Parts: sequence; C-alpha cells; structure tokens
Amino acid sequence: QKASFSTTLYRNMFTSELSEADVSALRVNGDRLAKDLHHSCQWGFGIRWGDESTDTGMQRLALSAEDKSVRDWFVQTMKDLKCDITVDEMGNIFAVRPGRRKDVPATFIGSHLDTQPTGGRYDGILGVLAGVEALKRMDEMGLETEGGVGVVNWTNEEGARFPVSMISSGVWAECLTLSKAHDLKEVPTVASLPTAASAPETMKSALQDIGYLGKVPCSYKSSPMAAHFELHIEQGPHLISAGQRVGVVTAVQAYRWFRLNVIGRDTHTGTTAFEHRADALYAFARMMVRAREVAAGKGCLASVGIIEAKPGSVNTVPGEVSFSLDIRGPETELVAEVEKELRRDFDEIAAAEGAGIGKPCRVEWKLDFDSPAVKFHDDCIECVQQSAHAVVADAPVADTKSLVRPIMSGAGHDSVFTSKRVPTSMIFVPCKDGLSHHPEEFCSADDCATGASVILQAVVRYDRKRFA
Amino acid sequence: QKASFSTTLYRNMFTSELSEADVSALRVNGDRLAKDLHHSCQWGFGIRWGDESTDTGMQRLALSAEDKSVRDWFVQTMKDLKCDITVDEMGNIFAVRPGRRKDVPATFIGSHLDTQPTGGRYDGILGVLAGVEALKRMDEMGLETEGGVGVVNWTNEEGARFPVSMISSGVWAECLTLSKAHDLKEVPTVASLPTAASAPETMKSALQDIGYLGKVPCSYKSSPMAAHFELHIEQGPHLISAGQRVGVVTAVQAYRWFRLNVIGRDTHTGTTAFEHRADALYAFARMMVRAREVAAGKGCLASVGIIEAKPGSVNTVPGEVSFSLDIRGPETELVAEVEKELRRDFDEIAAAEGAGIGKPCRVEWKLDFDSPAVKFHDDCIECVQQSAHAVVADAPVADTKSLVRPIMSGAGHDSVFTSKRVPTSMIFVPCKDGLSHHPEEFCSADDCATGASVILQAVVRYDRKRFA
Ligand SMILES: NC(=O)NCCC(=O)O
Ligand SMILES: NC(=O)NCCC(=O)O
Repeated sequence: QKASFSTTLYRNMFTSELSEADVSALRVNGDRLAKDLHHSCQWGFGIRWGDESTDTGMQRLALSAEDKSVRDWFVQTMKDLKCDITVDEMGNIFAVRPGRRKDVPATFIGSHLDTQPTGGRYDGILGVLAGVEALKRMDEMGLETEGGVGVVNWTNEEGARFPVSMISSGVWAECLTLSKAHDLKEVPTVASLPTAASAPETMKSALQDIGYLGKVPCSYKSSPMAAHFELHIEQGPHLISAGQRVGVVTAVQAYRWFRLNVIGRDTHTGTTAFEHRADALYAFARMMVRAREVAAGKGCLASVGIIEAKPGSVNTVPGEVSFSLDIRGPETELVAEVEKELRRDFDEIAAAEGAGIGKPCRVEWKLDFDSPAVKFHDDCIECVQQSAHAVVADAPVADTKSLVRPIMSGAGHDSVFTSKRVPTSMIFVPCKDGLSHHPEEFCSADDCATGASVILQAVVRYDRKRFA
Repeated sequence: QKASFSTTLYRNMFTSELSEADVSALRVNGDRLAKDLHHSCQWGFGIRWGDESTDTGMQRLALSAEDKSVRDWFVQTMKDLKCDITVDEMGNIFAVRPGRRKDVPATFIGSHLDTQPTGGRYDGILGVLAGVEALKRMDEMGLETEGGVGVVNWTNEEGARFPVSMISSGVWAECLTLSKAHDLKEVPTVASLPTAASAPETMKSALQDIGYLGKVPCSYKSSPMAAHFELHIEQGPHLISAGQRVGVVTAVQAYRWFRLNVIGRDTHTGTTAFEHRADALYAFARMMVRAREVAAGKGCLASVGIIEAKPGSVNTVPGEVSFSLDIRGPETELVAEVEKELRRDFDEIAAAEGAGIGKPCRVEWKLDFDSPAVKFHDDCIECVQQSAHAVVADAPVADTKSLVRPIMSGAGHDSVFTSKRVPTSMIFVPCKDGLSHHPEEFCSADDCATGASVILQAVVRYDRKRFA
C-alpha cells in the first residue's frame, strides 16, 4: 500500500485497525505544508536574501503584533479542523483533535511560532506547521485515533525577546515559576526594535497587550499530554554534510545563560594612561577571548550575543559593561566546569584592570537560565526511528537506513521541558549550511515534507502503542 | 599692591595705565566664582557621589533642554554685564564687553557648557564661568581695556552627543564645513537617554529645537577674535600628583576618531562550532585587546567608548558589530602609525574569524574626526606664564616658581581650532585623582580661583601687549 492523497483512504478507521504497512505508507501533503508554512510567514518582517518570493528571513518576536496575527491564524485554522482550543496563562495555545476515548490526554505535536530578530522561516515554524498538516491529513483521510492528537504553540521559545528560552514549556512543566516568567522583562536590544514597545515590557503586559493572557493555569496538570513530539530543522551541519535525511534526536546538550556586569570606572580616553584605567570594556574583551579558549578546551561552546557599554561616549572609557553569556556542552558537568573556570579567570581579568589605581574592575554573574542535558524517552525514540525508516524507504539509494541517524541537539527546544513530565522525542531534518538564527536559514520543501510525514507516523504509532 | 575686592580700585583706568605690579595683583572673587559655577550646574542631571549638596556629577548633553536653560542663564548674565551678544549658525554664543577701540576684535576667554553623559561640574564649565567671573571682576573694579574682552560658549565641545568633538569651533575656524556639522546625527547610545529625543536628531534640528540656531555665519571672519584663552581642569594626573598649581599648556596631542564596522554572520550559539562561526563580536574582542598592545608599544592611547552588536539576542552569534575607536598620541605621525598597524592587524583578525567556512569577517573603517597635534602661540603662552607666576607668588612655599609647569594637553579643546586662526593658549588647574568624564570629577574652589585669576591677568597682559 503506497502513499496517496485520496481524501477518504481510512474513512472512520481507527489507528489500531491499521496494518503496519498502512502506517508506513502514511505521508503528509508536502505542497500544502509548504503553502501553509509560507502563508504563515506573511506575519513578520523579513530580510531579503534571494530572488524567490519566499527568499526572506523572519522577524517575529514573541508577543509582538506579528506574533498576535499568526496566533489568530493558527487558532482559526485549528477551529476549522474542529479542534478544541485552550490558551493558558503563558499564552501557550493547545489545539486538540479529539480521539475515541475522552478520558485520556492527547498526544501532542508542538513547537513555536516566534523567531529571532534576524531569524528564518523554519526554526519552530516548521514544527507547528507540520502539526497543522498532520491534522489536516488525518482529517481528510478520515483516520481516527484512540487518544486525541493535539498541536501546541509554545510562547517565547527563542528567548530572544524575553531572555529565558523555552520559558512557557518550562512553566507548564512546573520547572519555572509563573510569577518569575510573568515579571520577566524584554531585553534592551530588542526593545529598541520597531516591533517592540519603546519601554521594556514584561511578559505579562505583553501577553495582555495582544490578548493572549489565557485563564487556564499553565501546568502539565491542567493541560495534560500523553506524549510530546517535535519536528525541527537541525540548525547544525551534521545531516546536511553527511547527505542524511532524518535525525532521530535522542538527547539535548546542556546549557546555561548568564548576565554579567563588569564594573570599572568612567574616565577620559585622552588623558588617562592605560595603567590608570579600570576599563570595563577592555576587561570584557579579554573575557570574551578567554571564554572561547576555555570552552574549546573542553569541547564546549561559549558565546556572547548581547553587549551594552555605558555611558556610551566616544571619549569616555566605559565604566560599566553588561553582557550575556551562553555556555553549552554535551554534559551538564562539562558546562559546570567551564563556568567554574570562567568565574575564576574573569575575576583574574577584572582584578588586573584597574589594579594600578587600586580600584580594579569587578565582575558580577547572574544565572538567567539553566537547562541540564536531557535524554529523550525510549518509546518515543522508537516511534520516531521506525517512522523515519519507513518514510525514507522511498529514497532512490541502496541503503536507505543510512539516511537516518541518531543525533544530539545542540539547541534547546520545548521538548526539553515536556520531557520532564511526559514521554518526548524529536525529529531533525537538514538545513542549508547548518545555518539557523539567520535570515538565510533554509529547509527544502522535500525535507520539510519528510519530517512532517515522520511526525505523522510517529504520532499514529504512539497512539497504537499506548492502547496496545 | 595686594589683591583686593574693592569695587572701585581702577575706576576708569585702562589696562595700559596699570603698572606691572598692578597687573600681578589682579585676582578674581573665588567665592563668587564657586557660587556661580554651582548655580549653573542646577541645569543637568547629576549622579550623586558624596554628601555635600554639590557632590553630584553632571549630565548636560549638547543642545538638550538642560543646555538650553544654562545658555539662557549665560546670555542673561552677560547682558546684565552690558555685553553685546551674538549667536552664530552653530549656536556658539559670543558675549563681548567693549573696549576703548571699536575697530578691533576682542580678546576671548572661551570654553563649553555641555558635558559627557556621566560627566562632572568642571570640564568646560569652569572655563566659561571663569570668563564670566573675569568680566564681573573687571566691571566692579572699573577696569577698562583697549580692545574688547569676550566670553564664548562653544557648542558640543565634548562630541558626546554629536560624535565630533570641538565641532563648532572647528566650523568657526573653517576647518570643518557647516553643512556636515549641521547634518551630523547624535550617537545611538546617547539617543536613548531621557535627555535626548528618541529618534536620532541632527545638530541642525537640535539647534532649532532649543532656539539657538543663530543667523550670524559661523566663521572667524564674521566673529573675529584677537586671541583665545581657555582655562580647563587638567583631566590627567600630572599636576595633582606633583602638587603643582598651574599648568601652562604649550601643546595638545593628536587624535583621530573612527567608527568601525565588523561584518560577520548571524548564527545559532548552540549549534555552531567555533570553526563554523564568523562571530563579529569575538573579532571585535580580539581587536580591542590588540589595539591596546599596539598603542602602548608606541606611547599612544587607543580606546573604545561605544559598541553595538546586532541582532542582540542571547542565542544568536552577532553578525554585525559597530564601535568607536579613539587613537591619541603626542605626535600626529605616531597616531598615523598606530592607525596603520591596526588597519593591518584588524584585517588579519577579521580574516581569521570565519575562515573555516570561507566567509571570513570583514572590517570597515570610517574616519569621523582628525585633530593633528597643536603647538600654542608664544605670545599667549608668555602671558599665561607670567600670570601664573604672579598668582602663585602668594603661596606659602619657598620656590613658588616650581608650582607652575609647562604641560601638553591629552584632551582636545576648542583652543585647538581657535589656534588655527588666532593666537591661543590654555591654563590647566589640577583635578582630583586626574579624573574626568566621571561624576566625581573635582577641582577645589581654591584651584578654580587660581586658574580664573591667571586667565584674568593673561587677558589683561595680552591687551597691554597688543597695543604696546
Ligand atoms: N531551537 C532554538 O533555536 N531554540 C532556542 C533555544 C536555544 O538557544 O537553544
Ligand atoms: N576636554 C575634553 O574633554 N574635550 C573633549 C574632546 C576630547 O575627547 O579630547
């Protein structure tokens, strides 16, 4: 039995009634997926990088006016598919296509519709749109599930506007507190973008502004799930450079986000000898160089994305610098080691700058976010693996199995937090040059469709497994 | 003959009729100077650093609402002294107390009333207020001059809001063009301060906004001067650490201001290996470290005061960084050498970052401002030197001559540009810790009075010399 777009293939059949071959034959409608995906990207400013109409990036910061528009579209689309809609206190939107059994939670497909300030059309967006397409496909085929199947759009996954990534799945998992999340302020660099208000907003006020501060408590207890599956572009170079089609994500690396302040002394650039300075920006420069050295030495990453120097005048040595630091590594312990070394080295660098005047720089660390390494659930991994092999079986190569590989995620995803409460795993598809958080981020329509077909099958397999 | 505050000491006498001893006995009223100076600092936000009512810094960015208020006060004060007031197209304010001869230009005392974003109460302000006090003192003593004596407040000397320092004396000297000056935009870091408008303003619109866009052409031809004297705090550590009272400024070091852009590639912090990055901020960090090395090796300075990294998100490697670079040195040629080495080294650093992906960073330089080294005029230096020795003669030390020293200025001053057109020199007085461009910048009332007495005598001496 081969894939088909007949609209009545399984009219009134239940997943449990399908043969293994029936499941393996399930495919989404790749053209419709591509059309819906680019349709949904009309809401968001895009930096142009090529000639095609869709060759633009995306700027759709969480809870911006553009985010409101795409949310409204998502809600209406899911209502048209006769889904039940819930919006919780973090603005997470849950859309559920009911199953035969009303007393059990649904299996979810989830990701996010927000983007980076200079992001692309696939990071997060593909994951939500794959869920929309999976439900459209089940609906037109007439396929019924035992438990319900849902699609969830998580709020502010990027952490770009409000600097805690995956914050709303974190509150849902009760790993982060609602009040801290509601009080979180947007970052100053993004606050100055035209899409954001000019004074820093909190998440709560931003949720209110766009009408997505829901009443349902944000918790896995109030919005329960049977499992969470997420399709995402890899955002790294492994699949694309090996010519592979699908990554079965087994784990996510650890990361920690910090905000650091270096306090030195403002002084005149023209009259102050180097040895009389406590130049907070010079200390920062040395710290950033050191951070790469130390992280590289341990197979980890360390990155600075945001920096502010005050007072910000050509001829005043900055007395205050604030910057973000993002440390990542394959093991939680390795990230902790990098942090420990950097705390020691940064103190040393600060102490050296200004020692000549007995007023050395000081450095303060604030932990904004801590995401330990994660291992996904074997049941979910197995569903994804079987589905991946089934979908790539069409490929014109001898060893189609080699097109699928297990992979660890370098980026965080909402699946990190759902995995704390429910069986979870993810699917990666390749993206051009491994590039992400960039307007040119690109995943071919074919690869998008492959990933969406895998998630469709994975959800069906999980539904069968649950009630077997 | 000793100093006295008798108000009729020289009623209707001309400078040419004074004895050498009369001139050497001239002193300002230090209490009144201190009172006026702090009175004028009511206009401007001050960061508090001590318990006294005047223990606060100053934020009075050029052409802000606070700058308008202090200008209005200055104009009224000078009108009350029966001065003629002229405002030119750059908002420079010239106040002239007429002399006996109407056909010759006045001798000027000048400096500026604008400050850094986190500046103090003395940088520039002391120079203008010393001029006000000198004229008050001449007025109450009844002393008449041959040529007129003027006080000038130059616009945006700091270059803190509009990033070209001494821009308005530069236009006056016809070293900079009016149209470029009028079109200059305020810096983004300062634009976000409450004292500035939220959208970047140009100098012309800012002049219009506060009503100081005068009609008189900004030129030494339309507002001629016989000479320009300027009193300033040293802003460096030499006088204070040697226990000296007055610096006779003979020269000003060279400096150049640049705006540099580093262009790399935005990408994900969590999934992009170091060798796959073209991290514009990392390249910047290496450049700043290198800049200090190279400058120090040549006895020069190199400083970064402003930095912006885009897009400004914790988990995006910045693809674009823009920063200011201020290079200074005792000789114009040395500054050029530092620039040359840094152009080569920065290219090398940029080329290394992103080489692994064949898309290395690039760096672009833009020269904003070039101020070659300056030597002041012998006649003016001589007037200052004689006056300095006369004023410190009261000091209770054996060798009062040792309290005065020749000195080079590390900072630029409007005197740099006036020196291109008319005899010019400057007077330095010590400041606490050599600290400037900082709220705690401090010069004792005694040192302020000493400097003001020196400038009063210097102007009188110059008037005598001119018509001898
Ligand atoms: N996938 C993704 O870009 N998530 C944002 C959180 C992170 O920085 O890893
Ligand atoms: N004196 C002073 O701070 N002038 C500003 C110009 C400079 O940076 O040297």
